[in-house]
Amino acid sequence: MSELVTFGESMLRLSPPGHERLENATELEVHAGGAESNVAIAAQRFGTESTWLSKVPETPLGRRVVGELRQHGIETDVVWSHRGRQGTYYLEQGGSPRGTNVIYDRADSAITTASASEFNLDLIQNAQVFFTSGITPALSESLRDATANLLKAARQGGTTTAVDFNYRRKLWSPEEAESTMTRLFPGIDILVIAARDARAVLGFEGDPRQLAHKLGSQYNFTTVVVTRGDEGAIGWHDSVVHDQAAYETDTADAIGTGDAFTGAFIARRLDGDDVPTALEYAAATAALKRTIPGDAALVTEEEVEEVVSERGEDISR
Amino acid sequence: MSELVTFGESMLRLSPPGHERLENATELEVHAGGAESNVAIAAQRFGTESTWLSKVPETPLGRRVVGELRQHGIETDVVWSHRGRQGTYYLEQGGSPRGTNVIYDRADSAITTASASEFNLDLIQNAQVFFTSGITPALSESLRDATANLLKAARQGGTTTAVDFNYRRKLWSPEEAESTMTRLFPGIDILVIAARDARAVLGFEGDPRQLAHKLGSQYNFTTVVVTRGDEGAIGWHDSVVHDQAAYETDTADAIGTGDAFTGAFIARRLDGDDVPTALEYAAATAALKRTIPGDAALVTEEEVEEVVSERGEDISR
Amino acid sequence: MSELVTFGESMLRLSPPGHERLENATELEVHAGGAESNVAIAAQRFGTESTWLSKVPETPLGRRVVGELRQHGIETDVVWSHRGRQGTYYLEQGGSPRGTNVIYDRADSAITTASASEFNLDLIQNAQVFFTSGITPALSESLRDATANLLKAARQGGTTTAVDFNYRRKLWSPEEAESTMTRLFPGIDILVIAARDARAVLGFEGDPRQLAHKLGSQYNFTTVVVTRGDEGAIGWHDSVVHDQAAYETDTADAIGTGDAFTGAFIARRLDGDDVPTALEYAAATAALKRTIPGDAALVTEEEVEEVVSERGEDISR
Amino acid sequence: MSELVTFGESMLRLSPPGHERLENATELEVHAGGAESNVAIAAQRFGTESTWLSKVPETPLGRRVVGELRQHGIETDVVWSHRGRQGTYYLEQGGSPRGTNVIYDRADSAITTASASEFNLDLIQNAQVFFTSGITPALSESLRDATANLLKAARQGGTTTAVDFNYRRKLWSPEEAESTMTRLFPGIDILVIAARDARAVLGFEGDPRQLAHKLGSQYNFTTVVVTRGDEGAIGWHDSVVHDQAAYETDTADAIGTGDAFTGAFIARRLDGDDVPTALEYAAATAALKRTIPGDAALVTEEEVEEVVSERGEDISR
Amino acid sequence: MSELVTFGESMLRLSPPGHERLENATELEVHAGGAESNVAIAAQRFGTESTWLSKVPETPLGRRVVGELRQHGIETDVVWSHRGRQGTYYLEQGGSPRGTNVIYDRADSAITTASASEFNLDLIQNAQVFFTSGITPALSESLRDATANLLKAARQGGTTTAVDFNYRRKLWSPEEAESTMTRLFPGIDILVIAARDARAVLGFEGDPRQLAHKLGSQYNFTTVVVTRGDEGAIGWHDSVVHDQAAYETDTADAIGTGDAFTGAFIARRLDGDDVPTALEYAAATAALKRTIPGDAALVTEEEVEEVVSERGEDISR
Amino acid sequence: MSELVTFGESMLRLSPPGHERLENATELEVHAGGAESNVAIAAQRFGTESTWLSKVPETPLGRRVVGELRQHGIETDVVWSHRGRQGTYYLEQGGSPRGTNVIYDRADSAITTASASEFNLDLIQNAQVFFTSGITPALSESLRDATANLLKAARQGGTTTAVDFNYRRKLWSPEEAESTMTRLFPGIDILVIAARDARAVLGFEGDPRQLAHKLGSQYNFTTVVVTRGDEGAIGWHDSVVHDQAAYETDTADAIGTGDAFTGAFIARRLDGDDVPTALEYAAATAALKRTIPGDAALVTEEEVEEVVSERGEDISR
Ligand SMILES: [Ca+2]
Ligand SMILES: [Ca+2]
Ligand SMILES: [Ca+2]
Ligand SMILES: [Ca+2]
Ligand SMILES: [Ca+2]
Ligand SMILES: [Ca+2]
Ligand SMILES: [Ca+2]
Ligand SMILES: [Ca+2]
Ligand SMILES: [Ca+2]
Ligand SMILES: [Ca+2]
Ligand SMILES: [Ca+2]
Ligand SMILES: [Ca+2]
Ligand code: NI
Ligand code: NI
Ligand code: NI
Ligand code: NI
Ligand code: NI
Ligand code: NI
Ligand code: NI
Ligand code: NI
Ligand code: NI
Ligand code: NI
Ligand code: NI
Ligand code: NI
Ligand code: NI
Ligand code: NI
Ligand code: NI
Ligand code: NI
Ligand code: NI
Ligand code: NI
Repeated sequence: MSELVTFGESMLRLSPPGHERLENATELEVHAGGAESNVAIAAQRFGTESTWLSKVPETPLGRRVVGELRQHGIETDVVWSHRGRQGTYYLEQGGSPRGTNVIYDRADSAITTASASEFNLDLIQNAQVFFTSGITPALSESLRDATANLLKAARQGGTTTAVDFNYRRKLWSPEEAESTMTRLFPGIDILVIAARDARAVLGFEGDPRQLAHKLGSQYNFTTVVVTRGDEGAIGWHDSVVHDQAAYETDTADAIGTGDAFTGAFIARRLDGDDVPTALEYAAATAALKRTIPGDAALVTEEEVEEVVSERGEDISR
Repeated sequence: MSELVTFGESMLRLSPPGHERLENATELEVHAGGAESNVAIAAQRFGTESTWLSKVPETPLGRRVVGELRQHGIETDVVWSHRGRQGTYYLEQGGSPRGTNVIYDRADSAITTASASEFNLDLIQNAQVFFTSGITPALSESLRDATANLLKAARQGGTTTAVDFNYRRKLWSPEEAESTMTRLFPGIDILVIAARDARAVLGFEGDPRQLAHKLGSQYNFTTVVVTRGDEGAIGWHDSVVHDQAAYETDTADAIGTGDAFTGAFIARRLDGDDVPTALEYAAATAALKRTIPGDAALVTEEEVEEVVSERGEDISR
Repeated sequence: MSELVTFGESMLRLSPPGHERLENATELEVHAGGAESNVAIAAQRFGTESTWLSKVPETPLGRRVVGELRQHGIETDVVWSHRGRQGTYYLEQGGSPRGTNVIYDRADSAITTASASEFNLDLIQNAQVFFTSGITPALSESLRDATANLLKAARQGGTTTAVDFNYRRKLWSPEEAESTMTRLFPGIDILVIAARDARAVLGFEGDPRQLAHKLGSQYNFTTVVVTRGDEGAIGWHDSVVHDQAAYETDTADAIGTGDAFTGAFIARRLDGDDVPTALEYAAATAALKRTIPGDAALVTEEEVEEVVSERGEDISR
Repeated sequence: MSELVTFGESMLRLSPPGHERLENATELEVHAGGAESNVAIAAQRFGTESTWLSKVPETPLGRRVVGELRQHGIETDVVWSHRGRQGTYYLEQGGSPRGTNVIYDRADSAITTASASEFNLDLIQNAQVFFTSGITPALSESLRDATANLLKAARQGGTTTAVDFNYRRKLWSPEEAESTMTRLFPGIDILVIAARDARAVLGFEGDPRQLAHKLGSQYNFTTVVVTRGDEGAIGWHDSVVHDQAAYETDTADAIGTGDAFTGAFIARRLDGDDVPTALEYAAATAALKRTIPGDAALVTEEEVEEVVSERGEDISR
Repeated sequence: MSELVTFGESMLRLSPPGHERLENATELEVHAGGAESNVAIAAQRFGTESTWLSKVPETPLGRRVVGELRQHGIETDVVWSHRGRQGTYYLEQGGSPRGTNVIYDRADSAITTASASEFNLDLIQNAQVFFTSGITPALSESLRDATANLLKAARQGGTTTAVDFNYRRKLWSPEEAESTMTRLFPGIDILVIAARDARAVLGFEGDPRQLAHKLGSQYNFTTVVVTRGDEGAIGWHDSVVHDQAAYETDTADAIGTGDAFTGAFIARRLDGDDVPTALEYAAATAALKRTIPGDAALVTEEEVEEVVSERGEDISR
Repeated sequence: MSELVTFGESMLRLSPPGHERLENATELEVHAGGAESNVAIAAQRFGTESTWLSKVPETPLGRRVVGELRQHGIETDVVWSHRGRQGTYYLEQGGSPRGTNVIYDRADSAITTASASEFNLDLIQNAQVFFTSGITPALSESLRDATANLLKAARQGGTTTAVDFNYRRKLWSPEEAESTMTRLFPGIDILVIAARDARAVLGFEGDPRQLAHKLGSQYNFTTVVVTRGDEGAIGWHDSVVHDQAAYETDTADAIGTGDAFTGAFIARRLDGDDVPTALEYAAATAALKRTIPGDAALVTEEEVEEVVSERGEDISR
């Protein structure tokens, strides 16, 4: 039985090599990625048995995505669909002052037609944590219902629920996001949210510590993690606030940083770490992720520990 | 002023290198291609000034497609759209007994919202030939109207109309194709059609010579070309039937063979060739196309002449 | 529970692109492959739940191999080892008159230290078929015992045993192979063997039909398949001999052809096909494999059926 | 009609991937680039209709260069030549303390035989700006005359003339450059020049503001831009000096930075910007160029505006 | 001391991958190649100590060429020059009916300024065979003298002289070739010539056996080899004519086939083989070359023997 | 005759492109590298005739390694072996906080069976310097003897002996290294050692200047160089200590930095430089090496001088 079950879409990611532009690309590198599968992979690296639930088209592209996730070690429990496309995103890696650009091409993907009844609820109810993100309900009306129903099922099964707020302005407006997400909040135990989203979407004010505290108190979360990019993260738990700095990195690929953080945090909490320790491992995992091409945090627990303990060598030989 | 104007969609073509499968591809080669732009490119190689009309999303992907077509030398006159996707197709090159596989991912592309009024009709009416294919009306209701209206405008301007029947079973049923296309037939001067489509979609019977003759007489085309893959083609014109054999090739990429044929045929007819001569150049262009990766027939007139005249060397140095 | 369990080594396969020589290669393509995992993958494509058992070093290279096998859809049940290397082979694709060349670099790999007691015998005893090949006992003394003991366990569990003779002259002498393999024969139900090996290693004589019959009768196999490369295969079962021709192919990668054949044959027999039908699907799967780069037969059941029924198109669109 | 017409050579640029050395390169990336086509491309990105004039060999290499420039959106009006080579340069990207190295292989290129009479002077005389650089007259005696004559024609047509001094020590000596270029100065309205060249080639002294002022006054230019690499630029116009800082960048490819600056400056001035605003957009375009592989500034006006307004996101999604 | 010394130019060879066209190539594969270095490499594979003499620019490109030749095992004795370019050729691999196309870009290369006095004549005079080809005197007047003088020096030193006629129509006219080459004939012991060149350049008539005999008798060569592409070769020696068939091949790269033939022939003659045996090894080496990308015949003596003896396996493992 | 002779293993280096992980690599870049061949290559760049001695398997992989070293300009004098593998290492380039990781796969390589009697001692005894490193005796018992015997032979021939301590914890323990290496110390003239190794393996204490002095005095070396990574190096000679700072670099590949330093130091000392000057060139060579992919310091003497003199340009054109 899986300890962690996640639900969401994983896309085919198409990106020109290096810093090339899409506009004149002659080849694209292919990866699979999506917030919920990224979180499952990161957690699996710490030995947490993880399963990703989704609905995927029964095509070579659908198999391409599922195959890569399986390669990375997680289990996949997928509704194979004859309707709907494989969701895709084009990624152009930037470099200051040119930002990294994501072009979504995911409308009408197979998962947008999913309903909770298509999935194996036992799997969720027997897991210790169920995770999804704010991207999933943003994709379709059907998925708004499915997300609510799966969170409900988890709660009924005594499974801890964790959600990354993950606001994406290219998917929906702040207003839509706020109204949908706050309706889900009562069913959520652990919330991860960017300080930026807490402010711009939910309208909270204050420094990140205050954001965490306000969110936690107002919505009765057991745990809130407020992320701040390269300024670190804040963990709020049992009304205590913990500060976690970010590690400096040579960034090869920033996509998936937050998911690596969240997956590691969940895995370490499941393993019994207290919040400050879990945040430290989460920050180290996120830092390592940034050195690795692709969405997935292909790290080992030993590597994370070397970062945390500062025992790493420049060249290990 | 362009001598040839074509109208249709050009897609982003994504294909794994060599004979790799999409299912485990880690990179995709990128090209632009679509029947009508392929025809324009082939014609341009013979010095025919050619313009491609289309509606394209104002995104890096849309610019990618238009840029490559411009690179190949044709003019583009494009409605830049803020609605609709860039149409895409995934291509997996086969090898006997595995066929080459096309996966369309082109639903809801920008061009599906196009209407004739968005385009510069003067350009069409001042050209000598206007070309489109049966793929265009297959894409949306709006495009069925647009195709009919643009053919009508061409006829009104005294511009010769040419259409490749190009039935695609992954886009529509034989019944839909038959009813839509036969309604367009009265407005068409030159019809190119595969013998297979004449039989399976239009229900004609007989050998290819008979197909050409029946089609030409029944619908009053000035010219009918019936293509037969590696068995060559039949040209019907002024009630005379001309046989053209196909050249043997080392095939690197079969996509676009028919478009190369049609583009060369039109260009040579515009240059004053009689039908048998134009068919010979068309067959040679199609053969050369098969040796070239990508949809486009990147040949020179000299190379085509060397094939026709059998003066080529194995290694030219 | 898996229907098919296979046991053996899967190697890291390193090959220069195209027809480049190792001697001046500047890059190598990486795949995972080995007879027993190849067989499991081919069987899985027909819906046969398949698990590969092995012993693998706990290193990035070991994870690389296991990850790719999981990507291809099979389950892996692996003893992670801190001793022994990851077995490797260098592959140089030839082209007439230059043969394809395999350079094994697999001595002292982790699996060479394996013993039967390290594996989950229940998995084997609950499966319907247990498969290994003559390569496994060729790798070490320890593996000779392990192979014998796992076959014995399968027999005791009522699991059908299947073995591909797979003689490799770069691993052991004909004499060693003969003496080891014939000692295993009494525990084997289904034997697959190349006509060449039946002659040169086992000393049998006659045409392939005779070889199949002599082998089957002498060693009391329930089924014998004698393979003959591009001349097809012979199936012997219930004292009846069935001829199966090979399909013509455009070969992109010949490695794994025999494994594709065997995996498909086992899968179709498990699905209830009679021997001639299973041979036909096996031959079609082998033909498709040859069009696909890498060891694995990444086919679909539908594609195999199109080959068998000759319903395939040159370009499907 | 084009608003901007540029004249010069565009070369085939051959560079090993990443930071590889030419000395042991096994592959070279191919781009087209030259100061004058780079300027035209940069200006076109701001909606300035731009045409590049040149003389190019009628070979696949010549077509390769022209095709890429057309792909980037500019018009090309080219004399196709049967004499002369395609100019080439080899580029080795450095990294501190190893400098980036350019090896010119452009002697006897087709353009070295060009004379003004081969080009369409109407195109120049109907444009608003005519641009060339100090590289063009450095290439041959014939081009010294052609440059002078085209500048003269522009002036006669009332077209503003703009020249980037662009001293290249691998093409000619400082003495040759000084004597040739100062003879052209009276026909030039807008001069762009590196502070380094103003000092080392023209013998001016003082800080960059003084250089701009001395140059402008002495030669009666309407506008002088003195560039200073990562220290920014100085614009002198109507006897007023404007300072423009450079933006910090993650540099992927420094080639073409100055051309991006100049093209954007011209385009924005044509659009009605005052000098300080045009300098700001020029600096932002130059910064974005450095993040993009290849000579060409493949930016959008929106991206430039985001840099100028500091509204960009690290990841846009 | 080297047994074989060759003299000529080796070029940087730039070719798009696969069957791509130069016209839209985005990358080029880099190799070094030239008839005389190709011959030296082929001979070296049979254990013949071989040195290549040339004049090369002291640039990264010059070092690139010399480095690759050294990598392939031959010695290089090179005049490093500060004048002249690195000769280059662009190669586009064809496929029927599109021929393979060579675009020379080698004018004014460093070697065109070479004179015999720049080279170490002792090396030639102490070798057993001195080899050059008809390409060398085609490159410049200076090289016509140098070729004549080095052949003279060889003869004076008692070194056997061997020349491949190698007519290249893109370098000189048949008339120039005939007059220059026939003046060199008296100093040549072994002549290799294509039947096509014997007819079209030298005006001989008859079947290949007659060509060999007429050439040998008229010019008093000790040995004449007339090559006929895929129809094999004729060896004339001691007034006896020997026929050698060509082997069938899967051709990956036809460039260098003749040089592989000649290098092997010389090496085997040096090792004491009679003419028919040397021709057989030469034909097998040429066949293997065609399966190998690049100009160089990277074969082993064992592989050649397997072809000659027909003992090769499809897959060796 | 070579001025510098080095002895050791050069491995096949296999590394994923960019910052990819081995765990999911689909291609590996191939290089040859090993401390002693790296040192020979660096010295050769300064005009020091250098030969590398080794024992290498007679396989395509062995030829791959030797070929690349020859390409880089050094001589190779190799015992071709029918026993033993080609040593290999897998290299994963890191990026902070992920370290660069080396996975050795070199057990039982051909060189591990080498003895001093297999090599040409004359070559060593006629050279000016003989070099090996602490890696060589770490590889096998046989190589411990061979190293001792070759150092002895060098001493007897009056050849200066130089050794880089090069402790590798993945090859042997500090205790084994200390006992073996200190036994070799009396036969060594020039010792290069990392400060880290002097402390952790040899148990010395103090700052790097003190380490150099203590080592030099205690073991009677003529010269000691203590390296300190990006903090520079210390040279001890004639009881005087010289400080050398490291140059700042954009590091593309850190492997081989120390070998570049040592090779340059030896070459410049052979050319007559005093110790501080040789250290300066060594530091500049090491800095340039870090900008170059692969193990080898493919620099020119001119480039090194530009770094030392700070005369380099950002872009040289
Ligand atoms: Ca491009
Ligand atoms: Ca490519
Ligand atoms: Ca990648
Ligand atoms: Ca794979
Ligand atoms: Ca590469
Ligand atoms: Ca390299
Ligand atoms: Ca292209
Ligand atoms: Ca590339
Ligand atoms: Ca090479
Ligand atoms: Ca992958
Ligand atoms: Ca690749
Ligand atoms: Ca190399
Ligand atoms: Ni980068
Ligand atoms: Ni990747
Ligand atoms: Ni192929
Ligand atoms: Ni990848
Ligand atoms: Ni391509
Ligand atoms: Ni292409
Ligand atoms: Ni390399
Ligand atoms: Ni691959
Ligand atoms: Ni592959
Ligand atoms: Ni870089
Ligand atoms: Ni390559
Ligand atoms: Ni590129
Ligand atoms: Ni590019
Ligand atoms: Ni091919
Ligand atoms: Ni290659
Ligand atoms: Ni190559
Ligand atoms: Ni990097
Ligand atoms: Ni490299």
